[in-house]
Parts: sequence; C-alpha cells; structure tokens
Amino acid sequence: MEKVLDETDKKILELLIEDGRISYTDIGKQLNLSRVSVRARVNQLIEDGIIEKFSCVVNSEKVGKKVSAFFDVDCEPCDLVEVAENLANNPYVASCYQMTGPSTLHMHVLVDDFTQLESFVNNELYALKGITRVDSQILLRRFKSRTGLKL
Amino acid sequence: MEKVLDETDKKILELLIEDGRISYTDIGKQLNLSRVSVRARVNQLIEDGIIEKFSCVVNSEKVGKKVSAFFDVDCEPCDLVEVAENLANNPYVASCYQMTGPSTLHMHVLVDDFTQLESFVNNELYALKGITRVDSQILLRRFKSRTGLKL
Amino acid sequence: MEKVLDETDKKILELLIEDGRISYTDIGKQLNLSRVSVRARVNQLIEDGIIEKFSCVVNSEKVGKKVSAFFDVDCEPCDLVEVAENLANNPYVASCYQMTGPSTLHMHVLVDDFTQLESFVNNELYALKGITRVDSQILLRRFKSRTGLKL
Amino acid sequence: MEKVLDETDKKILELLIEDGRISYTDIGKQLNLSRVSVRARVNQLIEDGIIEKFSCVVNSEKVGKKVSAFFDVDCEPCDLVEVAENLANNPYVASCYQMTGPSTLHMHVLVDDFTQLESFVNNELYALKGITRVDSQILLRRFKSRTGLKL
Amino acid sequence: MEKVLDETDKKILELLIEDGRISYTDIGKQLNLSRVSVRARVNQLIEDGIIEKFSCVVNSEKVGKKVSAFFDVDCEPCDLVEVAENLANNPYVASCYQMTGPSTLHMHVLVDDFTQLESFVNNELYALKGITRVDSQILLRRFKSRTGLKL
Amino acid sequence: MEKVLDETDKKILELLIEDGRISYTDIGKQLNLSRVSVRARVNQLIEDGIIEKFSCVVNSEKVGKKVSAFFDVDCEPCDLVEVAENLANNPYVASCYQMTGPSTLHMHVLVDDFTQLESFVNNELYALKGITRVDSQILLRRFKSRTGLKL
Amino acid sequence: MEKVLDETDKKILELLIEDGRISYTDIGKQLNLSRVSVRARVNQLIEDGIIEKFSCVVNSEKVGKKVSAFFDVDCEPCDLVEVAENLANNPYVASCYQMTGPSTLHMHVLVDDFTQLESFVNNELYALKGITRVDSQILLRRFKSRTGLKL
Amino acid sequence: MEKVLDETDKKILELLIEDGRISYTDIGKQLNLSRVSVRARVNQLIEDGIIEKFSCVVNSEKVGKKVSAFFDVDCEPCDLVEVAENLANNPYVASCYQMTGPSTLHMHVLVDDFTQLESFVNNELYALKGITRVDSQILLRRFKSRTGLKL
Repeated sequence: MEKVLDETDKKILELLIEDGRISYTDIGKQLNLSRVSVRARVNQLIEDGIIEKFSCVVNSEKVGKKVSAFFDVDCEPCDLVEVAENLANNPYVASCYQMTGPSTLHMHVLVDDFTQLESFVNNELYALKGITRVDSQILLRRFKSRTGLKL
Repeated sequence: MEKVLDETDKKILELLIEDGRISYTDIGKQLNLSRVSVRARVNQLIEDGIIEKFSCVVNSEKVGKKVSAFFDVDCEPCDLVEVAENLANNPYVASCYQMTGPSTLHMHVLVDDFTQLESFVNNELYALKGITRVDSQILLRRFKSRTGLKL
Repeated sequence: MEKVLDETDKKILELLIEDGRISYTDIGKQLNLSRVSVRARVNQLIEDGIIEKFSCVVNSEKVGKKVSAFFDVDCEPCDLVEVAENLANNPYVASCYQMTGPSTLHMHVLVDDFTQLESFVNNELYALKGITRVDSQILLRRFKSRTGLKL
Repeated sequence: MEKVLDETDKKILELLIEDGRISYTDIGKQLNLSRVSVRARVNQLIEDGIIEKFSCVVNSEKVGKKVSAFFDVDCEPCDLVEVAENLANNPYVASCYQMTGPSTLHMHVLVDDFTQLESFVNNELYALKGITRVDSQILLRRFKSRTGLKL
Repeated sequence: MEKVLDETDKKILELLIEDGRISYTDIGKQLNLSRVSVRARVNQLIEDGIIEKFSCVVNSEKVGKKVSAFFDVDCEPCDLVEVAENLANNPYVASCYQMTGPSTLHMHVLVDDFTQLESFVNNELYALKGITRVDSQILLRRFKSRTGLKL
Repeated sequence: MEKVLDETDKKILELLIEDGRISYTDIGKQLNLSRVSVRARVNQLIEDGIIEKFSCVVNSEKVGKKVSAFFDVDCEPCDLVEVAENLANNPYVASCYQMTGPSTLHMHVLVDDFTQLESFVNNELYALKGITRVDSQILLRRFKSRTGLKL
Repeated sequence: MEKVLDETDKKILELLIEDGRISYTDIGKQLNLSRVSVRARVNQLIEDGIIEKFSCVVNSEKVGKKVSAFFDVDCEPCDLVEVAENLANNPYVASCYQMTGPSTLHMHVLVDDFTQLESFVNNELYALKGITRVDSQILLRRFKSRTGLKL
Repeated sequence: MEKVLDETDKKILELLIEDGRISYTDIGKQLNLSRVSVRARVNQLIEDGIIEKFSCVVNSEKVGKKVSAFFDVDCEPCDLVEVAENLANNPYVASCYQMTGPSTLHMHVLVDDFTQLESFVNNELYALKGITRVDSQILLRRFKSRTGLKL
C-alpha cells in the first residue's frame, strides 16, 4: 500500500525534484519548518522508498552519446525474462521494460555513434538466445524529457 | 561540438550521478582535490550544460502514480510539431520524443489510475487537432530504469 | 472503493452464478443460514451493485444467430465516444469496449447469417461519421465462454 | 438444425433474460398462460439446449477484479488446439475463442491487479509450449456489455 | 434456400465442368440416361441458377496478359460500395470482392505489362474518390487455379 | 513466346468465352467462315495451349458451398514449395498462388459451412509441416467475378 | 523493345563499368578491335540510351554525408505523382521510386547529420500537401552497393 | 575523420560526377588550373577514398533487366551477418544493407523477367539458412535515380 503523503511532504519533494542539492535550512525557510524536522521528513521519505536516490541529470549528447535509440525486442515468450535480465546488465542499455501489447521488451540505448550502435546490435543483442526480431528507432527531436513529477 | 571531458571530470560526474547530494569536500577527498577546485569544476560542468540539473528520483508508484503508460501518437505530418509542443505542456506527460520510423510521437504518461488514464485519453489527447491514431501500452514490469549514464 | 466480501457472501455469489434460480431456502441449507438472512444478504449485494442482474444464458446459435463476429473499429479520435455510444445502441452489437492499444473500439456482433452481416457492415456501420477503418473476424471455435467468475 | 421458436417461446426467453428469477406465475400472467404450461415450455427450452443456464451477472470490478485484459495469443499452428484447451482450464481466463484472421486465440482475462497480470503472463502463459507471440490490451471504458440477446 | 441436388445432377455437373462441350448424348451414355432427359436436367440446372454459364478457360499469359496482380484497396468506409461498383466496371479488373478483415476490397487485375499496370494504378485507380491506400502484389507462380468444384 | 493472335482468333475466343457450347456453325455464321475452318482454328488454339479447357461455371453457393474464404499462409521459406503442392492437392482448395510481397501463399477455399472450415483449418492446414501463420478472411459480397477476359 | 547486345558490346560495357575512364585504345587491345571501331560502338551505345552517363562514384560518408536514410512516404493516392515530382527535385533526395505494395514512395536521402535530417523531415517533407505518413530507417551497415551490373 | 574538401576539390568532383570521362585539361580550363595540378588533386581524392571508382551508368531495362525488385529479408538475428554476406555475393543482388527498424536486410535485385525472379526466390534466397520471411516489391515508376551527390 502506498504511503499517503501530507501537503508538507509533497512540497519538500517538489523542492528536491527542482534542486536536488538545496539545503535543509533553505527548505525549512520556505515551508516554515526547522532544519531538523525537514531532515527527519526527508529521512522518512528515503526509508519509505519514496525518494529512491539523489542524482544529477547529465546531458547525454554533450558527453558524447550522440545516438539515442529505442528498441523493441521480440523474444520467444519462454526466454523473455532471461533476455530482459541480460539486457538490463548491458552498460549501453539505459532502461528496459516489459509492457502490455506484443511480447516485446521496450529498451532505451545510448551510444556514441553508429559504429557503436551497429556493434551493439550485431555482437551483443543478436548474440542473445531467444531473440526473434529487433526493431529500432533513432531519436530525432526531444520535446520533453522528464526531470520531475506532478504530485 | 561536445566538451572533451578529462578523467577527473568524469569521476566527479559519476560520484554526483550516484549521490546528487554528496558534499564537495567528500568528492575532493576521494579524488585528491581541494573543495574549492571541485566546486570550480562542477560550476564549469553546469555552465557548459553538461550537468543540466540536480534532482531526486521519486518512486512514482509509491506516490500514487499506479499506471505508467507509453503512447505512440500518429498525427498529420503538418501538425506534428504543434501536437508535440502541446503534449509537452501537459502535466501527465513525462516525456515526448520524435523518432525515426513512422511519423509518430513517442510519449511516456504517468497517471494515478485507469479512470484518470481514460479521462486523459478521451478529454485531453483526442481533443488535439491533427491526431489520427493513438496506440498505448501499460508497463507490466521494470527490468532497468536509467538512474545513471556510462561515461 | 470495492466492498470487501466475507466468505458467506462469496459462497452465496458462487451458488447464484451456478444456478441463478436457486431458492434462498436451498442456499440457506447449504450455508447453514436462515432463508431470511440469505435474502437480506442478496438484497445487500444487489444494492451495492455487486449483483447487477439475474439472467439466463441462451445458446445464440440455437436461436438462429449463426454468425458471431468480432470487430475492431478505428475512428477519428475526436469521434470515438460518439461512435461508441451509437454502436452501443445497435441491437446487433452484443458488447463494445474502448481498450488500450490502437484507438480502436472492440465490438462483438451477433447476426443470423452473412447477408445480415453484410447489411450491418455496409448500411449501419459504414454510415457512421468518423469511422476510418473496420476489421472483422468470424468465430470458428469456442473453447471457453464465461458463465462465471473466480472469486 | 436449430429449433424454430414460436412467439410465445421468444417472449418467455426475453422475460428470463431480463430477470432470471422471475416466477413462472408472473411470466404466465404477462403472456396469458398457466404456470404449468410456462414451466413445461421452460423445461423444453432447457432440454433443447436453448437455455444453457440461469446465472447472475456480477460486477467484476466491485469484487476486486480491477484489471480486465484481452489477449491475442499466436501459437505454432500445430499446437493451437492444445494451447487453447490448456488456457480454457485456467481460472483467470474468462473466455477463449479461435477466430478467422491470423492463427490467434482471442482470450479475455480478469485479474485483481497488475502484479497478478504480470505473474499470469510470465508464469502461466509464457510457460505453455507452442506460444510464439502474445499481444494484450487493457479495458479502458465499457460502452456496452452483453446481458441479453435480440431474438 | 439452395436446391438439393441428387446424385445424377451432381454427375452431370462434374462431366460438364470437366468438358463444357461434351454432347448430351455422351453424358447420357455414361449415366444411362436418354439424351432428352439429360437436356431437361441441364436446362433445369440453368433455370435454377446452378449453372451460370458455359465458357472456355483461356491461358491469360499466352494471349499477352503477362502481369497478374492482386490489389487490396482501402477506402473510406462510406465510399466502399461506390468504389467497388466503379472498379467492377473496369475492363482490367477480373474480380472484385468485399471480405471480412480490414475494410478493403480484394481485386484481381490482368494487364499486358508494367507500363499498363502503372497507368492503371496512377490514372484509373488513384483517380477514384474515397481511396485511401492501395497495396498490390504480383503473381510469381501458380500452383493451382480453379477449373472445377468438388461437389 | 506467346502466339500472336489475329483478329479472327480473338473473335472466336470471345464468342467461346461468352458461350462455351456455341456450335462451330454459329461461330462461322457470325464471322463469315466455314464450320471446317472454325474447327481448325479452335483446334489450333487448343494445341497452342491458348484454350486450356471448356468448362461450366457453377454457382458455388447454390450447390451448398456457403462459405468462401481467402487464406494467406505463411511458411518457412524452405518449405514453401512443398506446402503449396500439398495444398494444391486438397479438394477444398480452389486456387493457390505464390505472390511477391511477404513469403505467403494466397489460397481460395470453398466449404459447406463453418464446421467444415474449422475442421479444414485445424485438421488439414495446421497439420502441414512448415506452416508458421495462417490468416483467413470470409467473402462478404461479390462485386465482380471473372468469367471472361478482355483480349 | 530493348536492343539485343552482341558479345563485343557486352565486353565493352563491362570494361567501362569497371573503369569509366579507360581509353578506347586499351579497350581495343583487350578485345582485338581498332580504337575507331570501339569509339563507334560506344557512341552507338550512348545513342541507344544504353549508356546513360559516365560518372564517378563518391564515398558519401567521406564527403560529410554521415547519415543515409531510407524513407517510405505514404500519400493520398491522388497526390502521389505530384509529391513524387516534388521530392525528386529536392537536393537531399538521392532516389525516389513508386513500387508495387502499399501506395508508398520509396526514397533514399543523404544528409550531413541528424540536425539536417530533422530539418528536412519537419520543414521540407511534412510541408508537402497530401503526405499522410512517413516511415524512415537509418543505414547501419553496407554489405553491397551496386557499382556494376551483371550482363 | 572525413577529409575537409576545399572549394576546388568540390568543383572537380562535381565535374567528374557529371561527366566521368572529362579530360583533366578541360577541368583545368574551367577551374583555371594546370592539367598537372588537376591530376594531382584527382589522384589525392582517389588515394583518400573519396573517389571510389569511375564507372558508366547503364540503363538496366535496355540491356534486358526488365524487373527491378526490392526485398526485405527477415532472418534469425544470429544469422543476419552470414545471410547478408551470402547475398552480397549473388550476382542478381545489386545492393544489400542492414538498416535500423526491424531486423531486416534491404536488398535491390535486378533480373531479366518473372521466371528468373521466381527461380531466384525459390532456389537461391529460400535456400539460405536462417531466413524467416521475405517481402518483395516490384518497381513501377522511377522518379529520380541518383547519378550525383549534392556536395
């Protein structure tokens, strides 16, 4: 069962989503709370698994990942879970989901260039047992990319 | 042209991706740098657009977003950019991309439940001019979800 | 929020699903309850909307409905709800649902023969504004048909 | 060959479809028949297999079946009948048909939630020999659901 | 209601399917009937619409129809019947059917060569109002071509 | 190389396509030829393989073939020719072609009813080695059916 | 009607396909012909339209065309020819064909990078009237690229 | 890394693309260069792999290649590279590429006629191990065919 968040928790989350390094003192000032009680609430949110991690959002193109590709990977139904776990361990794979719809894994891949993409496809992906068909699309234009969540 | 990152920049980024709230002093200790020069490098990474943001990763299911859906939205080619910008402003839309492949927008939507999903589809999505076909899939199982980047 | 059913309610429902005309006296004997308290519980189940209706299951082929067809009806997204309500009022339409997946209505149709099916398709379905594509399949063999529910 | 129903049989069926627990006396009053001859006709309709069963229609969402899914299950043509019989015995499967169109079984599944759906898919469905591809869709909105039949 | 054929009628039809010019005397000899009663039965089969026509089967390639193509023609549902009747009048169209499945006409076209095919497609087919998509396939190899019927 | 037909040959063919039992005397009268030279030309057309057969066109529905179905049969590419030859020998199969487009056989099947169709599909078609997928469509309406050829 | 080439013509074509700048003297030596008669034959091949052009094959990647994309462009059937002629005039379009199969133009596009590709798609392609759907694929690996012809 | 071409190199390439047999003297006259320095630049362009070959463009239909077909060849992912290399060695195959999109090879085939096409498909293509599905389309009309490159 999900934790029911009160309004103060939601405001703390929104501030941390907007700036993951904001100090607890600054949060407290905005919400009229002491630094200690902000820390207590944040720790509780972490303990409840609501905050999974603090991180920083890196522009993948600016660090050389020029090609962003989405893959639909069809596999023999009996091999799907093993293929998925295999792909989840691959460093080029940014995300990997099982969806309703066709028995396909949906996967996001980030690579430096087409040479690396071709090598990933032919040497790493096609080498997995149980894969029957692979479809891929290349990102042309990003209109919105999640950096937050509407609570 | 992308900035060429040296090894120290890469290590700083890796530490910040793993823990977005790590103090510059702690980064300095691990990399044998002063707190001041860590701060200088981080500021430069922000200025260059390499670090886009510090944020916190929230477990969407635990805050009540029970349904995670992927949409492929076909539109009249001449309306695609306008539809995309419209959807990018919708608070339920987490991400929205134009890809190679069919003239389709790829969109990730997070909602509380099926009632909210049906309302989003019938009242907000289908109300946009130029949409010709909508396909949607519901997330069944998450094998990997990006919280980092292999540098 | 759904009603939480106790074990006695579940047993009453199972008996009524199996035989919709079973007397409350007979239900009471099997569950060690008085006829009056069975009736009270059944009335409560009806009031809560858990029992929607008592009915009888008729073999559609034996009353002359020789052709059982499933349709996927694509429509202009903006016309979908109106088309669906229209079809729901058509006496040949046994069921009509909006699903995830393509912007398609899923519809079950029962007709006497192919002449009636062709007339339904060309005169009633294709006459609706906003329909862009119709796919139909004919039932070949029934392996299971719901007449109950696993509680 | 189907039984040819006379007008009185049809009216009796319509009354029983509308209210499966209506008394034979009440049917008799409406149709100007004795209770005995109503019972004789109903028994004949049961004997001829025209009335398959009396039942009660339960609102599946209100008893906790939150997710209603349609599956198209592709199998090796030579395994289709065995897969179909297997699925027909699965308690989550409400109905299972072979249709014209692609060599696909059409199946309706009712489960409590997505955890149960994912477990059904990965542990029960994908474990069957001969399945090559599974497509699934989730019900968003019910416009009409058969509780009767136009005679 | 179809005519119920007796065994003699069936044998007469089989002989005429095999050789449309066989004399009634020869049929009579094989079936132990007089020429007059063969003629009477054939006339009755024509009158009942069972024999539609006597014809001769011409090898279309040997008279210069080098290209045999199958078309699936999608149209706006509301224009389907008019498009179909239009195409049925086109001399290049050998057959034209409405099928279950997508709202598509299935059409067989015989032309002399690709120049004629391209002209048919661009000047006659694409000129019809209501056509939304055309798919075509060229015959590669004929394994069986109906010249009879199993009675 | 195809035979080049002169105008007289073409007129003879047209008359025979229209009425396969027309006497050579009647043809001769219309074309101003002797009965003997008509016979000589017809015999030459038969010898050249231009006339394949004289036959009679039977209305398949009126002799009890109520269901006319088109099948697309996908097979393992290496099994395609063997599957095709097998199907060509099946008495329910009216025609069977290999086309450009997907590696699919296109097949026309005529059966008495759905019971026979289901038995054909499950017992005869699915029993063939190398078949991977079967799609079928039922004829709804016939707009044109070849009984001739434009010369 | 095509020109029937003799063996000498074929050998001359093969030598010119292999090296478009080979001197007529060198061709003559290899085929035991005078320089004059080689020139006469080449001129005749040009006049007959058999040799369309002498050209040089440039490695498109090495001159900065990093992205090679194939497009399938669906259009309203009535607009297809106009769209095709429009695209044929676009300098990024290397080739543009109408094929059997769906009513789609097949087009090869060469651009410098994804920014140019996105601009071509959104500003030049989607701006054309009558385009209903665009599918694109990016070249991953070249196994063979025509630079000759088997005569 | 690609060679950066200066304006003179580009102009030389454009002249050679337009006429592969133009003399270095004529190039020199148009660009105000000596014949020797033109030769030096052309030799450098060849050495850098920018000019791959001089060739002549032959009209394939006029030398008897009447049928131009595009194939999409699906294979088991693990066999794709071997199948591609095999096809690249086939003399009927003009080009063969691996693309993003489905795990399909895109191949251009030139043959004399349909008899040769059917033989290529059934005897050479379907005989390769690992091929699961073949789709083919025939060229109807050529709107543009690359004979140059926009530099």
